[in-house]
Amino acid sequence: MSVSTAAIDPSVCAPLPVLGQDVTVPLVTGGEVTYAALDYAASAPALQRVWDDVAAYAPYYGSVHRGAGYLSQLSTDLFENSRRTVAEFLGCRADDQVVFTRSTTDSLNLLAAAIPAGCQVFVFETEHHASLLPWRDAQVTYLNAPRTPAQAVETLERALADRDPYGPALVCVTGASNVTGELWPVKELAAAAHAHGARIVLDAAQLAPHHPVDIAELDVDWVAFSGHKLYAPFGSGVLAGRSDWLLAAEPYLAGGGASRKVARRADGGVDVDWHTTAARHEAGSPNVIGVYSIASACKALTEAGFDNLVAREQELVSRVREGLAEVPEVQVLSLFGDDAPRVGVISFVVRGWNSSHFAAALSAEYGIGVRDGLFCAHPLVRTLLGSDPQDPGECGAPEAEPGERSLNAIRVSFGAGTPDEHIERFLRAVSELVSEGAQWKYRTEDGRCVPDRGTAAQV
Amino acid sequence: MSVSTAAIDPSVCAPLPVLGQDVTVPLVTGGEVTYAALDYAASAPALQRVWDDVAAYAPYYGSVHRGAGYLSQLSTDLFENSRRTVAEFLGCRADDQVVFTRSTTDSLNLLAAAIPAGCQVFVFETEHHASLLPWRDAQVTYLNAPRTPAQAVETLERALADRDPYGPALVCVTGASNVTGELWPVKELAAAAHAHGARIVLDAAQLAPHHPVDIAELDVDWVAFSGHKLYAPFGSGVLAGRSDWLLAAEPYLAGGGASRKVARRADGGVDVDWHTTAARHEAGSPNVIGVYSIASACKALTEAGFDNLVAREQELVSRVREGLAEVPEVQVLSLFGDDAPRVGVISFVVRGWNSSHFAAALSAEYGIGVRDGLFCAHPLVRTLLGSDPQDPGECGAPEAEPGERSLNAIRVSFGAGTPDEHIERFLRAVSELVSEGAQWKYRTEDGRCVPDRGTAAQV
Repeated sequence: MSVSTAAIDPSVCAPLPVLGQDVTVPLVTGGEVTYAALDYAASAPALQRVWDDVAAYAPYYGSVHRGAGYLSQLSTDLFENSRRTVAEFLGCRADDQVVFTRSTTDSLNLLAAAIPAGCQVFVFETEHHASLLPWRDAQVTYLNAPRTPAQAVETLERALADRDPYGPALVCVTGASNVTGELWPVKELAAAAHAHGARIVLDAAQLAPHHPVDIAELDVDWVAFSGHKLYAPFGSGVLAGRSDWLLAAEPYLAGGGASRKVARRADGGVDVDWHTTAARHEAGSPNVIGVYSIASACKALTEAGFDNLVAREQELVSRVREGLAEVPEVQVLSLFGDDAPRVGVISFVVRGWNSSHFAAALSAEYGIGVRDGLFCAHPLVRTLLGSDPQDPGECGAPEAEPGERSLNAIRVSFGAGTPDEHIERFLRAVSELVSEGAQWKYRTEDGRCVPDRGTAAQV
Repeated sequence: MSVSTAAIDPSVCAPLPVLGQDVTVPLVTGGEVTYAALDYAASAPALQRVWDDVAAYAPYYGSVHRGAGYLSQLSTDLFENSRRTVAEFLGCRADDQVVFTRSTTDSLNLLAAAIPAGCQVFVFETEHHASLLPWRDAQVTYLNAPRTPAQAVETLERALADRDPYGPALVCVTGASNVTGELWPVKELAAAAHAHGARIVLDAAQLAPHHPVDIAELDVDWVAFSGHKLYAPFGSGVLAGRSDWLLAAEPYLAGGGASRKVARRADGGVDVDWHTTAARHEAGSPNVIGVYSIASACKALTEAGFDNLVAREQELVSRVREGLAEVPEVQVLSLFGDDAPRVGVISFVVRGWNSSHFAAALSAEYGIGVRDGLFCAHPLVRTLLGSDPQDPGECGAPEAEPGERSLNAIRVSFGAGTPDEHIERFLRAVSELVSEGAQWKYRTEDGRCVPDRGTAAQV
């Protein structure tokens, strides 16, 4: 997989309209400014198109599946058509299942509940906690952080070859790091997994919003992603892929919708006949609006020309990296080095700054929303920061004094809705904060970093 | 708990505005009619107020918890304030947790994952599958259908007294049946449970939309309900109640948000420090819009005067029951008899009719949306219909000939958004269908009951 650098079609090169693009926020220094949402990696704004589709549908909302009314049948069709849209978006194979979940975290927990007994799981320590932690009933091998994509493949191959006994195995890997934005060699890792008799699941939470994902072309067994990072923040996610483990497993949730027949037995117990489709893992009334919003986002990205969106985002990535490179105090975090292809997710620290205070100043003095912390990938961030992994510290905003080594980082992330101005404002803000200092001091209060009104206007 | 019959305040006695109230649907007999949504028990339309709140918030949507930007902090406050609103709505005790889930089904599966080892579970066979089935790791005692509320309490007391060994135990009971709408004696069952050292969880999926629920006054340990039945169909649900079992349990989902610190160990493993608040069971980015929509609905019901809404709904219940009683071919399903208090959920069969065909005719010829089937409460409906519980049959639309015994039922359900006209139209439709027959024939195609165009205009 490589990032497309195809020529950009000028007609679709503008950012896609998103909700909130005209929202203004107050500045601690006085006045207001339009909000620059640069935390897409945590959660992206809804595409205007997604919102319009949801708003158009909402009056037609009805109970799905067993409702006899017109709106129930319309809603059922909408729900099942959304499943087909997502399958097409992911390039699913004919016998793949598309299960609707609440998020990537939920999707991976579902898969963790569906792996066969005795399954060994292989996961790099560099993963997001959602990929790192769900495998509670399995024997998990944590693989050390590789420093090149090739080393990732070698590391995996060695671990799979060494495993004993040679039973079922699953590899879980991210498509794009939620910390560095770097692309992982998914196709090569999938080939390595399959060569050693293992399955592979792709955590596409950070990949799917930024890059087309083709499950068949990558030859991965499952793909997981979240609606809320794909411009559809209405509470749904997806696990798509191979049927066999999913349909052999106990239902993820027990309840209506997953059960086809339930009957008391003569001995006082209950017999249950579970569905043998995706519904098996979708007990409870489905989140029809959430599911439809994902399908709407898939269509919007496809119709806008995903390659064009990728090409435009790559221009923004280059601009951010060039701009940050001009500030010597900024250290961009990277696992695979400067030349590694990446999506619009970039983390960094600023020498002499507490990252939380820096992020707070970006917000309070420039109206820019970024994220500070360890980004739910504690081992990776600590490895990149050079912190002692034996001393985890508190995730959040440590009260480090300026000059002290950063215990957390700042992440800027963007995507299809980001206008150039947000990027330019961000780079100007970084440069000004580093060269001139913040206009206010900041302190942490109730776990939140806020301007310290008692020490204002220090300039 | 009893249904309030307080005097109705005329100023708030109108139905609350809901989305879709002006939607028209085509009739198979020609023309169009406004849709009468009478399947609230499956899923209710959004309150206009809830939609307006969601639409006003949507441009301000931002990543919650660790985002440093203004909209992230606004969204975090909105999310945590919603938790407080729900706690107030349910009358939670000071140390209760409010955990946001995706639905009642999810809430009960979460509780099932949190019960102590060796916990015995007691559940009436009359429950919805969401209450009947989640207790997969427990020793479950299914209690026979009681025929009076007092019998329910006696049955439970006897079963709890007989249990051996006398370890942890949990009772799961519905507040209002999703089939008959009948209220269960929750307070008395809670007292019986506690007297025998057991805990109790209230499935309030069908109660909360129709009746105030006070967790402290009922003295139940947990309450579960769904947003989509409470006029907030945006994919969220609630489990609220006692902290101890919840915070002692393994996190429901493993991932970010639930984990406070994660660190590699020297031996290659991973140490995780899990949150000790509701966040422990809320891994993954929360469904902020879904959660906020529930809080909005809670406020809307409270501000409208829930007692007035109850009183108005009781008038509709009486009208439906009186109207159906005038049609001798209609048999209303009831566990506790005619005088039992109930909410706006009524199931029935029509002698000589296949229930699925009857429901299809209500839709196609009158624009009325009801539900047919076994309502995800198979044992209860079969008990009420007198079907052989050893022969479950397929849930759905059996191809019974007119005159044959019904294998499923029809359910009409309504609530705060239902205008009188929908009820009157429904009663007129039942009367006309029974006395004059349908104008079209119906057949089942791909599991859906549709007008049979080849045999149209039989009248």
